[in-house]
Amino acid sequence: SRNIRLAVIPGDGIGTEVVAEGLKVLEAVGAKFDTTHYDLGAARYHRTGETLPDPVMEELRGYDAILLGAIGDPSVPPGVLERDVLLKLRFAFDHYVNLRPVKLLPGVETPLADVSPEDIDIVVVREGTESLYAGTGGVMRRGTPHEIATQESLNTAHGVERVVRYAFDKAASRPRKKLTLVHKTNVLTFAGDLWQRTVTRVGEEYPDVTTDYCHIDAASMFFVSQPQRFDVVVTDNLFGDIITDLGAAIAGGIGLAASGNINPERTAPSMFEPVHGSAPDIAGQGKADPTATILSVAMLLDHLGMKDEAAKVEQAVSDDIIERLAGWASRTTHEIGDDITARVSG
Amino acid sequence: SRNIRLAVIPGDGIGTEVVAEGLKVLEAVGAKFDTTHYDLGAARYHRTGETLPDPVMEELRGYDAILLGAIGDPSVPPGVLERDVLLKLRFAFDHYVNLRPVKLLPGVETPLADVSPEDIDIVVVREGTESLYAGTGGVMRRGTPHEIATQESLNTAHGVERVVRYAFDKAASRPRKKLTLVHKTNVLTFAGDLWQRTVTRVGEEYPDVTTDYCHIDAASMFFVSQPQRFDVVVTDNLFGDIITDLGAAIAGGIGLAASGNINPERTAPSMFEPVHGSAPDIAGQGKADPTATILSVAMLLDHLGMKDEAAKVEQAVSDDIIERLAGWASRTTHEIGDDITARVSG
Ligand SMILES: CC(C)[C@H](C(=O)O)[C@@H](O)C(=O)O
Ligand SMILES: CC(C)[C@H](C(=O)O)[C@@H](O)C(=O)O
Repeated sequence: SRNIRLAVIPGDGIGTEVVAEGLKVLEAVGAKFDTTHYDLGAARYHRTGETLPDPVMEELRGYDAILLGAIGDPSVPPGVLERDVLLKLRFAFDHYVNLRPVKLLPGVETPLADVSPEDIDIVVVREGTESLYAGTGGVMRRGTPHEIATQESLNTAHGVERVVRYAFDKAASRPRKKLTLVHKTNVLTFAGDLWQRTVTRVGEEYPDVTTDYCHIDAASMFFVSQPQRFDVVVTDNLFGDIITDLGAAIAGGIGLAASGNINPERTAPSMFEPVHGSAPDIAGQGKADPTATILSVAMLLDHLGMKDEAAKVEQAVSDDIIERLAGWASRTTHEIGDDITARVSG
Repeated sequence: SRNIRLAVIPGDGIGTEVVAEGLKVLEAVGAKFDTTHYDLGAARYHRTGETLPDPVMEELRGYDAILLGAIGDPSVPPGVLERDVLLKLRFAFDHYVNLRPVKLLPGVETPLADVSPEDIDIVVVREGTESLYAGTGGVMRRGTPHEIATQESLNTAHGVERVVRYAFDKAASRPRKKLTLVHKTNVLTFAGDLWQRTVTRVGEEYPDVTTDYCHIDAASMFFVSQPQRFDVVVTDNLFGDIITDLGAAIAGGIGLAASGNINPERTAPSMFEPVHGSAPDIAGQGKADPTATILSVAMLLDHLGMKDEAAKVEQAVSDDIIERLAGWASRTTHEIGDDITARVSG
């Protein structure tokens, strides 16, 4: 079979550093890939004024998957790169599932007292193409005392149902078979009603899955006080953004949090990226933990049907973490990448 | 001077139980109050179909302050009471400051490992009358595959500036003098831009206050991993809702979290309430912790200028918590109320 075609967008800041380690692991695991690097992010923006030109986007469409490091730099007006590269790709390639595991691996330090790995094993299925991320809204009388600024949350039956179905499938495949809708139905009544009705209706097709509901405010509390409550969580784009960063915090930090922007129908390439940003404050110093990117590579392998390779990478990461615990000195980005690569090849 | 006129809305579930203890403490501290109880919530709704009739609202307007227990019951369609009583009062009485301290008291157990009281001492100034809470939006083709549901976030210069000013004043009055704006400016560009510009502009009048910015997703992470980062936080209605429940979790749970819905110009009564809800699952069993309500009473006293009495109540709560730590058996709602009352009277 032909090699898998992978587009690589290292991006800004620590993005380049962590992606290099991810690719090392990908190569070591024996997957046959052809990789092409795309120079998108702050450097290109400053050089050419471009963020993501249409021809580049159309080229990217032809790949089997995309690996992204991080996008964003303080030298660019806030949000420009995030919106014109990252969000644009999510929307254009219909990444309606933003899959974010929140799993405490054995040996990882968590800021929570009294929790162990069996207490934190959550998969957040965040919707990726709707709600307040639609970007609609406007401003009137800007800069005057009469300014009004609006944002619109757009939610459709089509958009909600497909991600809810995905979440039910995911829940059905896990031992606990529990799905929690997280929203704010008591305030966002129109959108909340659509989400709640959809979960109820689709849930009838999944009699084995227990469904639950939790407001986003209560869910944020429970992530910290009772993470055991959650198995699969399905939620909208904005709530998912918040709860998955919180999830990263309780599961040992942003250095370990992986994510997949998934187009389940495969009408366009899915995109895998660490949850963390470009972290300009530590860029270029070999301080970034590439583990989140390496775990994103495992998700990528899994998505492409290479289950054994995915499992091998995950195992290598778990083993590496246990060793860390066993008293390793703090390692550089390269060293962590090398250590995990060695386990994968070995 | 005349007695202070207090409207009391015990509400639903544990609301009645905790408010009774709050009133006991209020009496014991020696403040001269005339209290009038208002029967609003699920019982009235079922009896009369009413939530908050206009004449009742106009009557409430005449009080010096309102003490509220909790509103909401599973027997009422979700959100109806919350919106038609709680949110209606916040909007009608222009409670544009929703003040929520996040403070770890000595002796309180927190789910976070390795933090001590000096690490968690935050005041969240949540905007209370705008953003997605405006309730605007709509639904089209409901129940069909072509349904679309929208929500609108409305933000005004007037609404943002007044709460930002309040937050700067608050920050200026505290030793660390730091104000962090929490928003999501990279996605909610129109509203985020208004908030960011307002903080920058008003901040020029407060050269002693350091300002900082944090996206809501990162802030949720930092509340757990580095709460020391925050002194005063100013944020919009929805983000404030989420971050203050998270704040309650890190500061020892919802049983201790107090709040004030404040109209700083005093054109209408301010309203004080515990952050927790009506908790129907434990209602009527004497299991609710009245401490959050008692601390809300302290905020009420403070708002009404009774600083000594407020300090006395706070001190009684701190002392009570230290005793709890020293091995008290688990107490009922009444017993906790009695113990704190005894300290206040003593
Ligand atoms: C960079 C930003 C636009 C993005 C988001 O909000 O989705 C990020 O926070 C994430 O979670 O991937
Ligand atoms: C009950 C609900 C409408 C309310 C809110 O969202 O403001 C509550 O969560 C709160 O924080 O006081």
